[in-house]
Amino acid sequence: MDMMSHLIEAINSNKDDTSLRAIVLSAKGNVFSAGHNLKELQSSTGIEQHQLIFRKATELMKSIIQSPVPVIAKVNGFAAAAGCQLVAACDMIVCSNTSKFSTPGANFGIFCSTPGIAIARSIPKSRATYMLFTGEPITAQEAYESGLATKVVPEEQLDIEVNKIIEKIKVKSRSVIALGKDFFYKQIELDVLDAYKLGEKIMVDNINSCDGQEGIRSFAEKRKASWSHK
Amino acid sequence: MDMMSHLIEAINSNKDDTSLRAIVLSAKGNVFSAGHNLKELQSSTGIEQHQLIFRKATELMKSIIQSPVPVIAKVNGFAAAAGCQLVAACDMIVCSNTSKFSTPGANFGIFCSTPGIAIARSIPKSRATYMLFTGEPITAQEAYESGLATKVVPEEQLDIEVNKIIEKIKVKSRSVIALGKDFFYKQIELDVLDAYKLGEKIMVDNINSCDGQEGIRSFAEKRKASWSHK
Amino acid sequence: MDMMSHLIEAINSNKDDTSLRAIVLSAKGNVFSAGHNLKELQSSTGIEQHQLIFRKATELMKSIIQSPVPVIAKVNGFAAAAGCQLVAACDMIVCSNTSKFSTPGANFGIFCSTPGIAIARSIPKSRATYMLFTGEPITAQEAYESGLATKVVPEEQLDIEVNKIIEKIKVKSRSVIALGKDFFYKQIELDVLDAYKLGEKIMVDNINSCDGQEGIRSFAEKRKASWSHK
Repeated sequence: MDMMSHLIEAINSNKDDTSLRAIVLSAKGNVFSAGHNLKELQSSTGIEQHQLIFRKATELMKSIIQSPVPVIAKVNGFAAAAGCQLVAACDMIVCSNTSKFSTPGANFGIFCSTPGIAIARSIPKSRATYMLFTGEPITAQEAYESGLATKVVPEEQLDIEVNKIIEKIKVKSRSVIALGKDFFYKQIELDVLDAYKLGEKIMVDNINSCDGQEGIRSFAEKRKASWSHK
Repeated sequence: MDMMSHLIEAINSNKDDTSLRAIVLSAKGNVFSAGHNLKELQSSTGIEQHQLIFRKATELMKSIIQSPVPVIAKVNGFAAAAGCQLVAACDMIVCSNTSKFSTPGANFGIFCSTPGIAIARSIPKSRATYMLFTGEPITAQEAYESGLATKVVPEEQLDIEVNKIIEKIKVKSRSVIALGKDFFYKQIELDVLDAYKLGEKIMVDNINSCDGQEGIRSFAEKRKASWSHK
Repeated sequence: MDMMSHLIEAINSNKDDTSLRAIVLSAKGNVFSAGHNLKELQSSTGIEQHQLIFRKATELMKSIIQSPVPVIAKVNGFAAAAGCQLVAACDMIVCSNTSKFSTPGANFGIFCSTPGIAIARSIPKSRATYMLFTGEPITAQEAYESGLATKVVPEEQLDIEVNKIIEKIKVKSRSVIALGKDFFYKQIELDVLDAYKLGEKIMVDNINSCDGQEGIRSFAEKRKASWSHK
């Protein structure tokens, strides 16, 4: 519960600071996250507390989705249960080739139902069901093949790969990325033609924003753009 | 029609028997299933009968989705048309590396529209359209790459691989798996934030179920859980 | 704007000609399409014109989806931004192994929001976000692994591969393919059980159509079907 509060706080605290351009979630040691603390889920804790815990987890997932900057999971080790959910909820996932991902909750009597929400939106059905019903881990390579991981690299290249992504984000306008990210998660919930209808409006808004026009001008004038990030 | 009735009966007959923990659909010979019997679809059969056939097919798919236990397709050979639909509708698909999958209905004037429902929910669009519009088979390897197959193994390891999955299911609580499977298919139809909202409730219900609490206690006490399966 | 009008015209002009069996979108030179013309998006063009441009783009995507024949993107080179959207909106994508795909709009201040609609429906989330947020190209091989491409072949086999697909389409009934394509894009927007309900009706309609019955008869009589295509 504390860790989730800290993460939400960290993701949201300088949300409007234009110098914040990307968020990287990473861990020390060989466990990225093992998910919820089972002790907090004992009956002695009480149902009200259990409800607060899962409301908090949703709040964390929402914070990631609604963050104006891309959120990258940098995984070097094991991401299990709600830890795997946290990874799958991030915009991009870069992991070392020795990383593993699992949703073993049912082994402890608690099906990874909420992790399944993020995972079912990241990998094919036949793989999500395997993870959820067997609890068996998948390797980094399988995570790549399934689409869960954006990139898989040797451990020593993990920072390099994440930094490459960040550098690509940093040369762009923050407000343009924010507008694009917000729309991305909106449109995937819509019927394709409704998505295009809303998309038309978003494109026109983007073009006529300050950084939209600066981008087009700088392209025409063959110079580097100077973003306002607003 | 008879085969579909038998399958529905077989899937549902001992649905509430707690010793039933998984269902494996398999076939003798090198054809897993070739789908509907074209003779039953002749005009002489009559439209009412055609309607009954496809209503029955939907009932079969629903039986798989709504079965409280995981349903595994063990494929060693050819799964075509509604046979491919049957495979894609299963929770997990384990196949031999010589298996093939196709939706050739349009070759016989009948587009695999209903198989397409299951397939479009299992593999990327560019592959589903290929299968449906060309009628060409995809190999087991392509089925794996596309996400249709959970695992692809040499024929002689097919039973071993399926049994590994079943063993992992058997060490868990039946009721926990049932709750998780039911929620999995519910949440994939929802907007992600609605899914999390419902998921919070499901997690709290799971934790406060008999086997949820037993799982947490056994973990704390470092002993094997003793499930009630209820 | 002119190019989009030409494409829409070309896709729709002989829509009802039964000898039209498939549409192939291809390009001369090593750029399949670089997307919108940034000059047309300058502020001097005016917001009304910007709105028309994106309305036109939606119309183009709708033309592809609603075309009664399969639309195949034959890509040999670079498909960027709305050019990548155009590719992803096609039913099938066959590309040479040196092709590349990117959505670099944000580099020019204009996030590829509308391309993201087609891309998010073609590849896993962790790859779509990478393309959209970094603007980096993915290779043909990565496009295959992600599910964006149906087939990747050496440049000299590109026509051969596309022709194989077309030959498979040509031996089928045009009206049966049209019915199947229309239903495919309808059903992917529906809840799975609603999709099956609608699918039952579509199957019965298909079977009792002229070419549905001809297909079944020809199969029973072990002869080649003679399609009316109507």
